[in-house]
Amino acid sequence: MSCENNNPVVGIIMGSESDMPAMEPCMKQLDEFGIPYEVKVASAHRKPAEVHEWASTAHERGIRVIVAAAGKAAHLGGVVAAYTPNPVITVPMKTSDLGGLDSLLSMVQMPSGVPVACVAINGAKNAAILAVQILGTGCDTARQKIIDFKQGMAEA
Amino acid sequence: MSCENNNPVVGIIMGSESDMPAMEPCMKQLDEFGIPYEVKVASAHRKPAEVHEWASTAHERGIRVIVAAAGKAAHLGGVVAAYTPNPVITVPMKTSDLGGLDSLLSMVQMPSGVPVACVAINGAKNAAILAVQILGTGCDTARQKIIDFKQGMAEA
Amino acid sequence: MSCENNNPVVGIIMGSESDMPAMEPCMKQLDEFGIPYEVKVASAHRKPAEVHEWASTAHERGIRVIVAAAGKAAHLGGVVAAYTPNPVITVPMKTSDLGGLDSLLSMVQMPSGVPVACVAINGAKNAAILAVQILGTGCDTARQKIIDFKQGMAEA
Amino acid sequence: MSCENNNPVVGIIMGSESDMPAMEPCMKQLDEFGIPYEVKVASAHRKPAEVHEWASTAHERGIRVIVAAAGKAAHLGGVVAAYTPNPVITVPMKTSDLGGLDSLLSMVQMPSGVPVACVAINGAKNAAILAVQILGTGCDTARQKIIDFKQGMAEA
Amino acid sequence: MSCENNNPVVGIIMGSESDMPAMEPCMKQLDEFGIPYEVKVASAHRKPAEVHEWASTAHERGIRVIVAAAGKAAHLGGVVAAYTPNPVITVPMKTSDLGGLDSLLSMVQMPSGVPVACVAINGAKNAAILAVQILGTGCDTARQKIIDFKQGMAEA
Amino acid sequence: MSCENNNPVVGIIMGSESDMPAMEPCMKQLDEFGIPYEVKVASAHRKPAEVHEWASTAHERGIRVIVAAAGKAAHLGGVVAAYTPNPVITVPMKTSDLGGLDSLLSMVQMPSGVPVACVAINGAKNAAILAVQILGTGCDTARQKIIDFKQGMAEA
Amino acid sequence: MSCENNNPVVGIIMGSESDMPAMEPCMKQLDEFGIPYEVKVASAHRKPAEVHEWASTAHERGIRVIVAAAGKAAHLGGVVAAYTPNPVITVPMKTSDLGGLDSLLSMVQMPSGVPVACVAINGAKNAAILAVQILGTGCDTARQKIIDFKQGMAEA
Amino acid sequence: MSCENNNPVVGIIMGSESDMPAMEPCMKQLDEFGIPYEVKVASAHRKPAEVHEWASTAHERGIRVIVAAAGKAAHLGGVVAAYTPNPVITVPMKTSDLGGLDSLLSMVQMPSGVPVACVAINGAKNAAILAVQILGTGCDTARQKIIDFKQGMAEA
Repeated sequence: MSCENNNPVVGIIMGSESDMPAMEPCMKQLDEFGIPYEVKVASAHRKPAEVHEWASTAHERGIRVIVAAAGKAAHLGGVVAAYTPNPVITVPMKTSDLGGLDSLLSMVQMPSGVPVACVAINGAKNAAILAVQILGTGCDTARQKIIDFKQGMAEA
Repeated sequence: MSCENNNPVVGIIMGSESDMPAMEPCMKQLDEFGIPYEVKVASAHRKPAEVHEWASTAHERGIRVIVAAAGKAAHLGGVVAAYTPNPVITVPMKTSDLGGLDSLLSMVQMPSGVPVACVAINGAKNAAILAVQILGTGCDTARQKIIDFKQGMAEA
Repeated sequence: MSCENNNPVVGIIMGSESDMPAMEPCMKQLDEFGIPYEVKVASAHRKPAEVHEWASTAHERGIRVIVAAAGKAAHLGGVVAAYTPNPVITVPMKTSDLGGLDSLLSMVQMPSGVPVACVAINGAKNAAILAVQILGTGCDTARQKIIDFKQGMAEA
Repeated sequence: MSCENNNPVVGIIMGSESDMPAMEPCMKQLDEFGIPYEVKVASAHRKPAEVHEWASTAHERGIRVIVAAAGKAAHLGGVVAAYTPNPVITVPMKTSDLGGLDSLLSMVQMPSGVPVACVAINGAKNAAILAVQILGTGCDTARQKIIDFKQGMAEA
Repeated sequence: MSCENNNPVVGIIMGSESDMPAMEPCMKQLDEFGIPYEVKVASAHRKPAEVHEWASTAHERGIRVIVAAAGKAAHLGGVVAAYTPNPVITVPMKTSDLGGLDSLLSMVQMPSGVPVACVAINGAKNAAILAVQILGTGCDTARQKIIDFKQGMAEA
Repeated sequence: MSCENNNPVVGIIMGSESDMPAMEPCMKQLDEFGIPYEVKVASAHRKPAEVHEWASTAHERGIRVIVAAAGKAAHLGGVVAAYTPNPVITVPMKTSDLGGLDSLLSMVQMPSGVPVACVAINGAKNAAILAVQILGTGCDTARQKIIDFKQGMAEA
Repeated sequence: MSCENNNPVVGIIMGSESDMPAMEPCMKQLDEFGIPYEVKVASAHRKPAEVHEWASTAHERGIRVIVAAAGKAAHLGGVVAAYTPNPVITVPMKTSDLGGLDSLLSMVQMPSGVPVACVAINGAKNAAILAVQILGTGCDTARQKIIDFKQGMAEA
Repeated sequence: MSCENNNPVVGIIMGSESDMPAMEPCMKQLDEFGIPYEVKVASAHRKPAEVHEWASTAHERGIRVIVAAAGKAAHLGGVVAAYTPNPVITVPMKTSDLGGLDSLLSMVQMPSGVPVACVAINGAKNAAILAVQILGTGCDTARQKIIDFKQGMAEA
């Protein structure tokens, strides 16, 4: 498994075009890390076949980590996790009524057998950092990026 | 569309065998109404293909209403709703840590375009009554069962 | 029971004139489906007799499905459900203090014997879709509208 | 309006026979105060006409204060309040899943125009004390009972 | 105990001058009912002696019902209730962080022996209506105002 | 101000005799630290004058820190804090319905001007440790007890 | 241990520069009390070594009380408390999604052995008052400031 | 970076010996996957230096993924994450008062820059599965274990 190439290794999926502004810090942080990624917008409920197809083929395309963002009854992360052997990081979207508590519980409380890795409500930047930490478990250059990033924060 | 036959018109699906005791009042109530149903146990996360197959063919088998029960990050109702034109009644299962608030929000807060009909936490009996009310919109005998049932409650 | 006519088959009731803007997506979606409906504004608490009268005669007027929207201690759906054999879809209104958690719990946690079909907080559009799904259990043309609608979402 | 007689002046209503044990401290406390009361068990949802009849005639029977206990989507207090000019004290019943938060919000968050006087979850004894405080606003002997009761607590 | 005079029979107390705008509907509604009242601003925590004095003498001044409004850890109602035989209606103030859930629980969950009558978050108008309902238990003219008021709502 | 003597320097007050078992770890920990204390049981609501007297004279008796434990609408800490210049540590008692969230919010959300120092729900042992930390700000021997205690935990 | 000098005796630490506006009332109140303090901005997560160093040397620099402010998963207070014998007052920062409930629970629910003294969400001014109350346990001039401050509030 | 050896690649840390029973499904699942791990019990608050040492040297010992379990104000995961470049999976422990909502929010709401990968309350088994998914991003044999595991669930 090669650890450095130009093909996307992170797959970002979000349930709605309206999640894009909240997810931009994720893409920006991956850009800063120099980690190639692909972005998909598709609702688990409105376009289930498209999500199914995207998720079940991701690891065959070279995707190593998936980031899934959704709001309200946020099933996207769980649905994707059902179809992929990759780790799935979920980003619960803040909601206008319950503040994102609904998104959070819909994501983090996954039942036994199919975990997701949940970050904070609207934690898009952290999702990117976690994705690189995960890649770093099998890739020294990715891990070095994290070590440098943490050093940079400590010295800021 | 015939309104009285011996084929199942309600499809009950639950995420885990452990949901069965909580769902028994649903089956019992449908038995009392004399409404035929089928029961399926399959997790949206552990057996996604099986759920997909069951849900997308339900209306072709003559199922008119679906009842989906699940707990925690309860995606089963939403996943089934994505694949069927039938109305989907969801029963959030009580959980041992958050009391079922997680199951409830994971079910009821469905995003725009794909609704479910959520009843109370562990509201299995009510799911059966609602299923027959729904069948009653197109079937006078089913509606009469509800009228009689309500009359019975008022006189109890 | 005829399945296609020009009389209202969906009855929409809301607790206050102030709920109207939040409920407009419901009326708009029913218009797009070509489903005739009637609209009533009456509080279960301030005008109980009027609500009683409206609810208990709805099915005699040809109403097949009821949509009830209310906020805070949102009793309207339950009160209507007590007086009608029709299925009652409830839409919890977002509130300015608790975000709609009060409306949601007041609606969804209906006790045994009298269910409602609760959708998301401010889920007005979904209430319309669910109403047509329910009508579709006994009416092929309504069901076809849902099949087409879901197809449209998948292809959007 | 006579302030001392042997007719019930407090009307206690509860949604279910299963609420009786939790409500016994209310009856016991009224007994200790020597305040006559009547007790009714009827669900606002399962027996709406019976509740309607009981509530709308209560003040004509001499009832001055109503105590309403219910659980989950606890509409009973609000429904009774809609039909009576009497003050309505509500007792939210503890629930096995959400601890009574659902009952509490369903009762206390009454919309404008029709208040209830909500006490604590399972606060049956306090409902009785509050009922006598309320009677005390127009009846010196009732008020004296409260003054004596408070004196007794302070000296216990 | 006279039931009609020009002396204040309702005492309104609030914890802070900043609660005044939220409480204005209470005063306005009492004005519309023609019920005389007095208004006091004093924090249970910052001015405990002043609150103690006001509360323990209220019934001697002719006050029959107290309305107490406060926010956050809202102890004012309980503190007043400790010192008066009068019924105490509490109005939990909406808060900018928790929406008033803190105020609500701090008021409604009163321990055994000392109840308050809690209305909705920011339910100032309802507090006034409830106060007059309470006065109406011992005063036919007050009760008639409520009957007329409810009639007016039903006909609005 | 002497820092070592045999007179109580910590005053423990709790709202009910039923809080005693949950508070025993506080007394036990103070015993282990060798810090003298006094214990009082009195409800802020049922015995307001007694609480007033105890709290307003505490610092004159040599009490330097107060620990107040109460449950539900837990006003005791705030009421005591209103009457004493001493720091008041509050221990929210776990409740059978809301788990202690009510006690916690009733204590921690104190309005501006009169703080309390809130510890965890049922955090009786931590209240004792915090009391000694507070005494340690002005007493080297108390501070040394904390340094030793922390050293002991690190080596356990 | 001297009780009056010009060296900082209160150490204020906050997790982010963005917490500064919410914490200004703390500094302002300490200025009004004439209590010298130092201010540090450092995240427990981004700059753990710097926080470790600051916290573990604070009492050697003469700091007697620490105030720690942080938001979301607010670990700063607990991390500081692990490294200092001083009492640590924590101020949970209001958050844009959950209103500060996350910050509050992350701070107040400290496990056994290492307490913090939690004040209200955004309770910066109260943190300053509590700090001086704590100093007052071992310093008569500090205690007198609190007595005067409380007198001032009562007379305002 | 070798992907198959006998040295521990997963480091499990928990805040208290009392967390061990809830975490046993994690160890058992790793055993079933044949993934070597080490286990550490140390509180972030009671033994901060020991946690610091363990966390900051983990990746040098060959640990690739960390699982951190803690309850209440659960800072352990965040503290560990501050000191390691490894991904940190956090398991919020169920608590007896708030059901684990405190543990969950204390873990998942990590501020920007230092993420953790949070799983469900008491989600010990899922933590193990996620750990292997993460290892699988850089190790084909680990990924194959996940593919086989998911296949096994689908066929169960």
